[in-house]
Amino acid sequence: MQDDAETPRGHRSLGTDRLAAFSDGVFSIAATLLVLDLAVHPPGTPLEQVLHAWPGYLGYLVSFLTIGGAWLLHASLTDRLTRSDPNFLRLNLLILLVVAFLPFPTGLVTDALHTGEGQRVAVTIYGLTLLAIHVLGSALNEYARREHLCPPRGDGQDEQGTHRRLLPIVIGYVIAILTGLVVPGAAVALYFGIAVYLIVPFREVVRLLFRRS
Amino acid sequence: MQDDAETPRGHRSLGTDRLAAFSDGVFSIAATLLVLDLAVHPPGTPLEQVLHAWPGYLGYLVSFLTIGGAWLLHASLTDRLTRSDPNFLRLNLLILLVVAFLPFPTGLVTDALHTGEGQRVAVTIYGLTLLAIHVLGSALNEYARREHLCPPRGDGQDEQGTHRRLLPIVIGYVIAILTGLVVPGAAVALYFGIAVYLIVPFREVVRLLFRRS
Amino acid sequence: MQDDAETPRGHRSLGTDRLAAFSDGVFSIAATLLVLDLAVHPPGTPLEQVLHAWPGYLGYLVSFLTIGGAWLLHASLTDRLTRSDPNFLRLNLLILLVVAFLPFPTGLVTDALHTGEGQRVAVTIYGLTLLAIHVLGSALNEYARREHLCPPRGDGQDEQGTHRRLLPIVIGYVIAILTGLVVPGAAVALYFGIAVYLIVPFREVVRLLFRRS
Amino acid sequence: MQDDAETPRGHRSLGTDRLAAFSDGVFSIAATLLVLDLAVHPPGTPLEQVLHAWPGYLGYLVSFLTIGGAWLLHASLTDRLTRSDPNFLRLNLLILLVVAFLPFPTGLVTDALHTGEGQRVAVTIYGLTLLAIHVLGSALNEYARREHLCPPRGDGQDEQGTHRRLLPIVIGYVIAILTGLVVPGAAVALYFGIAVYLIVPFREVVRLLFRRS
Repeated sequence: MQDDAETPRGHRSLGTDRLAAFSDGVFSIAATLLVLDLAVHPPGTPLEQVLHAWPGYLGYLVSFLTIGGAWLLHASLTDRLTRSDPNFLRLNLLILLVVAFLPFPTGLVTDALHTGEGQRVAVTIYGLTLLAIHVLGSALNEYARREHLCPPRGDGQDEQGTHRRLLPIVIGYVIAILTGLVVPGAAVALYFGIAVYLIVPFREVVRLLFRRS
Repeated sequence: MQDDAETPRGHRSLGTDRLAAFSDGVFSIAATLLVLDLAVHPPGTPLEQVLHAWPGYLGYLVSFLTIGGAWLLHASLTDRLTRSDPNFLRLNLLILLVVAFLPFPTGLVTDALHTGEGQRVAVTIYGLTLLAIHVLGSALNEYARREHLCPPRGDGQDEQGTHRRLLPIVIGYVIAILTGLVVPGAAVALYFGIAVYLIVPFREVVRLLFRRS
Repeated sequence: MQDDAETPRGHRSLGTDRLAAFSDGVFSIAATLLVLDLAVHPPGTPLEQVLHAWPGYLGYLVSFLTIGGAWLLHASLTDRLTRSDPNFLRLNLLILLVVAFLPFPTGLVTDALHTGEGQRVAVTIYGLTLLAIHVLGSALNEYARREHLCPPRGDGQDEQGTHRRLLPIVIGYVIAILTGLVVPGAAVALYFGIAVYLIVPFREVVRLLFRRS
Repeated sequence: MQDDAETPRGHRSLGTDRLAAFSDGVFSIAATLLVLDLAVHPPGTPLEQVLHAWPGYLGYLVSFLTIGGAWLLHASLTDRLTRSDPNFLRLNLLILLVVAFLPFPTGLVTDALHTGEGQRVAVTIYGLTLLAIHVLGSALNEYARREHLCPPRGDGQDEQGTHRRLLPIVIGYVIAILTGLVVPGAAVALYFGIAVYLIVPFREVVRLLFRRS
């Protein structure tokens, strides 16, 4: 509520805390709804049924980690905002629209891995959804930088840092989508790898390992 | 929690942050639950099945954007409140009741577009729900203005601005509902158009385009 | 985060803002999940199918308004808290457990009204759930008063006001449950009436009517 | 938003309020989604059907209380944080991933108790999930302590207190999992007992009882 400042052009915009509350809500609900797709089915012993449901666990894992990683990027941007503006709010709604859509292609991939049919279609739609989240995220980031919605940082490290993080992810998704057109299974492995990359703080891990020894 | 002020008549009312938290919760959950209605069904190749599910994507898109647009209007009102009162809180609950109901008529429209049956009924119920959200939103806005729940603005721009935005939306929904009684498909197109109008900041786009050139 | 105060006995307790965030989350999700129970079924024309689904709309309406009314009472209590303590937090979890359970008996009542079977059982379970929410709410309110978790009010109006509101509700639910054992349909009407009573600010309405004239 | 402090190594990290909002969201949604697994099925009279659904109520009760108890521990840790760092945020995402997964094994246990088949598998997966939540919670707690993300407490009571609470829980889950390999039903009783232990403030109850007398 401290963000009541007028924008330079006299457009009063929404407090960034409301933007954060709504966005955090959509991210956390989309991530939690993923569990509704998990199910076990006959035939087989109980243990076999649980093990045969592995595509569901894989889809849950990759999508949850991807939403979590996207939330980290999104929250680290919006947490730094000193104000928002109408374009930012609406671009943000588009990102949330795609994030909230993710449980659907996740279910498609899970079903395709189960039945062995339609893997190429499912994996491609899944990849395009992940790509859209991060392309829109890049646009949101770039917009905030151009319109000076975030306070400038003396070292310029932060903008570079976000770009350095987002560009390889976008490239990774493009490669994975193209791979998936030929070998759908390999694309799923790539999406898993990118999700792990989004979540695991490699530099921090290296730092911790060296400090310990 | 800074909103503990007594109302003029000695009725202590709820902090506006709690009102915001509950409302943002319902808006974000209703928007995210829309994905649960998406599904693909045989017959056809995997790609055909995904493409034949287009009514679901359309319903998701229109309803998500409408909820997002309604949230923008709702948040911009409630974010400016300096206090709330019992009537405001209860009128707000009615809006949330209709917003949370939207996934149901969305599903009706999706099913009707799929099967080709009952389109007129589904589209009319959908339109009445959208209309109810915005009529109740207008009432909430008007109530806040009359009871001075928002700080007055010197230029009076804001109240006019909200009215200027809400009136054409309400008129648009009435036209769309009447259209839908004759040509249901055209009404869906109108609902999509209104949702885009709610979301796209046309004046901002024009401003940006001119500034760039 | 301003609520870090130690309790008198040295037990540091959770900030009341976290308690509020978690509670508002459960209330808003439980209310929004109610829509998932709505569905139309053959036979009949599309309009007949929609109209025949009236028990679902009634259940949605009563349960949403009841959760909304319970949230109003809960939020007005927790918003006044200056601190919480372990008992308060745990008693609060029990209330949330019952609130989050409400979609299940709502579905039972809806199904029973549809099929005409098992109405007495469904309506009784529904009533007991509503009663439990408000009895636990009374206990929470009483506990906060005894342990001085809220700042005292000079006029003592507030405690009396809450009691004055909660006691007739509890009595109303007991009467409705007993009625439902004989005439289940009448109990549903009573639950609807109590929900309206929870939401409509009668004194405010009277005040507004008189001021206008 | 007051948590903008730079970490010692120049990594700016996310405000702890965003971390809290996202985490509270996942905890409250996971707890509320549990109700979607409840259902009654023929054969039998309406009352018999409701009574035969007891495994569902038991699963709902144990999982809701466990999530509630885990939320209490999680919130009491994160509420004390003065800052977070990338590792903390990511470790936290892993906990949320397991918490949001809980409705699935809850459904497995419910189904297994209904049908009498696959109880050992279901109960073991359920126990491993509960164990994972608390082991990861211990790791998060330990990490926060080592990296000094919380302000030090003069008496050192708090860290000891958390360890004193978490260690018996972890031991309890290990015992319950091993028990479940032999007598699945006994493990469910143990999970219920641990959930009650997580929620009921025994020391407070004793204190209250003695003060009253």
